[in-house]
Amino acid sequence: MSQKGFHVAVVGATGAVGQQMIQTLMKEKFPIGKLTLLSSARSAGKKVNVNGEEYTVQEATPDSFEGVDIALFSAGGSVSKELAPEAVKRGAVVVDNTSAFRMETDVPLVVPEVNESDLYHHKGIIANPNCSTIQMVVALEPIRQKFGLKKVIVSTYQAVSGAGAAAVEELMDQTKAILNKENYEPNILPVKSDNKHYQIAFNAIPQIDKFQENDFTFEEMKMINETKKIMHLPDLQVAATCVRLPIAVGHSESVYFEIESEHVTAQEIKEVLKDAPGVVLQDEPENQLYPMPADCVGKNEVFVGRIRKDLDEPRGFHMWVVSDNLLKGAAWNSVQIAERLIELGLVK
Amino acid sequence: MSQKGFHVAVVGATGAVGQQMIQTLMKEKFPIGKLTLLSSARSAGKKVNVNGEEYTVQEATPDSFEGVDIALFSAGGSVSKELAPEAVKRGAVVVDNTSAFRMETDVPLVVPEVNESDLYHHKGIIANPNCSTIQMVVALEPIRQKFGLKKVIVSTYQAVSGAGAAAVEELMDQTKAILNKENYEPNILPVKSDNKHYQIAFNAIPQIDKFQENDFTFEEMKMINETKKIMHLPDLQVAATCVRLPIAVGHSESVYFEIESEHVTAQEIKEVLKDAPGVVLQDEPENQLYPMPADCVGKNEVFVGRIRKDLDEPRGFHMWVVSDNLLKGAAWNSVQIAERLIELGLVK
Repeated sequence: MSQKGFHVAVVGATGAVGQQMIQTLMKEKFPIGKLTLLSSARSAGKKVNVNGEEYTVQEATPDSFEGVDIALFSAGGSVSKELAPEAVKRGAVVVDNTSAFRMETDVPLVVPEVNESDLYHHKGIIANPNCSTIQMVVALEPIRQKFGLKKVIVSTYQAVSGAGAAAVEELMDQTKAILNKENYEPNILPVKSDNKHYQIAFNAIPQIDKFQENDFTFEEMKMINETKKIMHLPDLQVAATCVRLPIAVGHSESVYFEIESEHVTAQEIKEVLKDAPGVVLQDEPENQLYPMPADCVGKNEVFVGRIRKDLDEPRGFHMWVVSDNLLKGAAWNSVQIAERLIELGLVK
Repeated sequence: MSQKGFHVAVVGATGAVGQQMIQTLMKEKFPIGKLTLLSSARSAGKKVNVNGEEYTVQEATPDSFEGVDIALFSAGGSVSKELAPEAVKRGAVVVDNTSAFRMETDVPLVVPEVNESDLYHHKGIIANPNCSTIQMVVALEPIRQKFGLKKVIVSTYQAVSGAGAAAVEELMDQTKAILNKENYEPNILPVKSDNKHYQIAFNAIPQIDKFQENDFTFEEMKMINETKKIMHLPDLQVAATCVRLPIAVGHSESVYFEIESEHVTAQEIKEVLKDAPGVVLQDEPENQLYPMPADCVGKNEVFVGRIRKDLDEPRGFHMWVVSDNLLKGAAWNSVQIAERLIELGLVK
């Protein structure tokens, strides 16, 4: 760190998450001495305006990381796999928003509200979890701390911005075409690199990321495996069904969970969440108050409502969890990790 | 019944479901001798075109049912409560698509693929279940028959047409306004008669129908109570979270269920559903084949896919169930009940 602040690099600066990372760094008044914006060769040369100053995005190469203190990666798994170790070699701490290193045993997978202390064990790379995982564990962790946690079954309602800025454009263009009774050709969603593409406007697609051998999607397996790792609960039962919907920003989740304690009321769950870090409780059915994606856009918190005790299972509960997938689900969690690293003295 | 066919009355003929009922009667070549189209006073006088013939919709009164053999009601619970008994008094058999009589012990609540034999006990009124319940029990019943059923946890992804034709208009107008960066004022969804109305375009609203004392919505309690009644499983554990989405037609459901049998594979569940009445199995992850609302519109069947065995619970499974909420969820199930009543000789 120079006297003026840290040299921060954003890799994938022109993407949906990269753009949010830059904005979040500014909004949070992150102690930046120098800002370097990097991207793949395809996007290099683009101009990006940051607080009135124009930056030219440069192609990310191993040498780009000379002198960098903190590198925030969000340019896809293959870029991270190739360049994150190069950045570490050159002395940077990497916060990686891709799935490249998340399940590696010597890479901490961190949501600061849940497992900040895992940062102490970092070896240069800290992984930022999957968007849909982050918001769920922020809501579950305070409940686990007080009542234990045995089982989680989640169904997601995910926004298209999770698939990138081009997917949001596809949603909007397709919606216009359908309203105007014009033709359109889906070619991004559900998964750009997969074989078939489907209409997302006025539709629901029960596929996010590619199918695995066990017929779960990779997104579903991320939620399952990452939740166990972040919460340090290897035996937690977790199941997920992930669905893409015609929403631009804001993931929602219908979460069923079973706790270990007996005789707990929904009111006690609400009390715990009311004071939980990073959580905003919005749960007043009598006033029709509950979280919705349209209300969470641009906010860092995780919004929780619709908390009910299961009518049959005495340790079972239901809740509805909503968050801005580009912020707490990605950019804000990454910047928050970087902030915590600095505060804990874990950046050289 | 006259020699030419039955005198059929459709009550609520100008509504979203009423219109589908008329179309379904025509498409199914229902043996109609005379067709009477009825509505509330508000819609009376409207003209409706049926197979090229113009009908004037008349205000439904007790006397409207003189000579009627079969009356299909879909004009709201209060109309059914007032007029269905009047129709029965005059000798009609009523198939009621509202929630007015569904939970009454002497009113059969029928999905023909599941509990057709309950029709034998009718006393003039047969209730058509809630749309989201119907498609779920069609998929669950063949599984129950072969393997037993202990527990169901469902999260729904429901289309706005379930809230009527005006709600679809609200979705479309609001979507246009948002794309054009114009203002709009929501005033129908989530529940017209409730206090607050929210944006549905590009949003998810976790409220369908009004909240009950236990903080579940009425829609959720319908799914819970109706499923137990239709399946004759009063002790079945059922939980539901119901969510409204920016989709015009086609409800989807993420269903977790636990069976009684042990050592059953996902493949065996698929085999059962492949040959089940009213079900179309669409489950080829390797070909990205799964049900989606955009594909189910205008079809009578219930589409099932994404069948997976739970990774922890040996008797637990997940599936994704999609159907046209206006057809199998309403109009087609009602007409199907009427067809079965005739075939079983249960219409006088």
